[in-house]
Amino acid sequence: MMVTGRRSGRRPGKQNTRDQILSAARLAFAQHGYGGTTVRAVAASAAVDPALVYHYFGTKEKLFLALMDAPIDPRQYVDTIIDGPVDRLAERMLRTILEIWDSPTGPAATALFRSSIAHERSARLLREFLLERALRPIAESVEADPELARWRANLLATQLMGLVTMRYLLALEPLSSATPERIVELVAPNLQRYLTGELTPLT
Amino acid sequence: MMVTGRRSGRRPGKQNTRDQILSAARLAFAQHGYGGTTVRAVAASAAVDPALVYHYFGTKEKLFLALMDAPIDPRQYVDTIIDGPVDRLAERMLRTILEIWDSPTGPAATALFRSSIAHERSARLLREFLLERALRPIAESVEADPELARWRANLLATQLMGLVTMRYLLALEPLSSATPERIVELVAPNLQRYLTGELTPLT
Repeated sequence: MMVTGRRSGRRPGKQNTRDQILSAARLAFAQHGYGGTTVRAVAASAAVDPALVYHYFGTKEKLFLALMDAPIDPRQYVDTIIDGPVDRLAERMLRTILEIWDSPTGPAATALFRSSIAHERSARLLREFLLERALRPIAESVEADPELARWRANLLATQLMGLVTMRYLLALEPLSSATPERIVELVAPNLQRYLTGELTPLT
Repeated sequence: MMVTGRRSGRRPGKQNTRDQILSAARLAFAQHGYGGTTVRAVAASAAVDPALVYHYFGTKEKLFLALMDAPIDPRQYVDTIIDGPVDRLAERMLRTILEIWDSPTGPAATALFRSSIAHERSARLLREFLLERALRPIAESVEADPELARWRANLLATQLMGLVTMRYLLALEPLSSATPERIVELVAPNLQRYLTGELTPLT
């Protein structure tokens, strides 16, 4: 295919503003976490008007996703996962995750994981991303005690992160070639304990 | 402190032979896995006598550890973990792992994890390392069916890798600041299911 005339895309000046915002956001999220970061603070640190941040990225959530170069927003799956019998919550969660990772989005998600773990700063972003956008809302849907909900989200994170790492990044066998069905059968009971099992409250 | 005279250490010629063996070993382990690699094959590929491999590294196991730049050999803990009541196997395993990672060895182990996950080839080595040197022997101590033992080792890997990643690499809270006691209380029952719980055999 031949390319004629001017290349399309953003003008350099605009691209710079966008990058400036992204750099400021990267720093802010890494320093203050997802919850502690505001669009106003990012704008101030990028020396632009907050309206420009909204113009380029829409919302704080979308800014965050752009920063992570995230192929999907896990938040969009949360309602579907929560909706249904509580005793099969783990199963719905696991099926959704396996569907995403086994889909064409999978390799991009794997790349994001791999690079995020390798670097301290992006590791912190990944942590915020997973917890705030997916695991905490799910844990809070079944746990009223805020401290225990935090723990449940943490425990879910350990099992899910390990599963994804071993199946998709390290390609462990037989795990890597197993059907989603088999994995649900083996792993869902453990996830379900983290979600709704009795956990000793902290004294 | 002043350094006078010749610097101590290996002579350049010998260092080169050692590096040559390490390069050949890296390739062999990555291509054929830990089990499929022999000292003889590494020696042949490095174009040296097998005796030289033994001279520099002692055994295949030690060659592997040198290659991984591993701060410890997980195999040395296996017997102590296995020794004791089966229904507390998960607890002993977890305590040992937390002791290692909370010790001065921890940061080196974290660095190894981080870099191993980031690169395809070292990720494969890490996988072999964890399974062959630690998880498989432990799973086989309680599971006679070889296929189920492989599965149990895989499942242990998912939970343990995720726990270590979240506690030490991503420093998730409250997990990261929790006492080992608290973590054993919360995670050991899940690990124990993977070790001795009833798992549907593959048909």
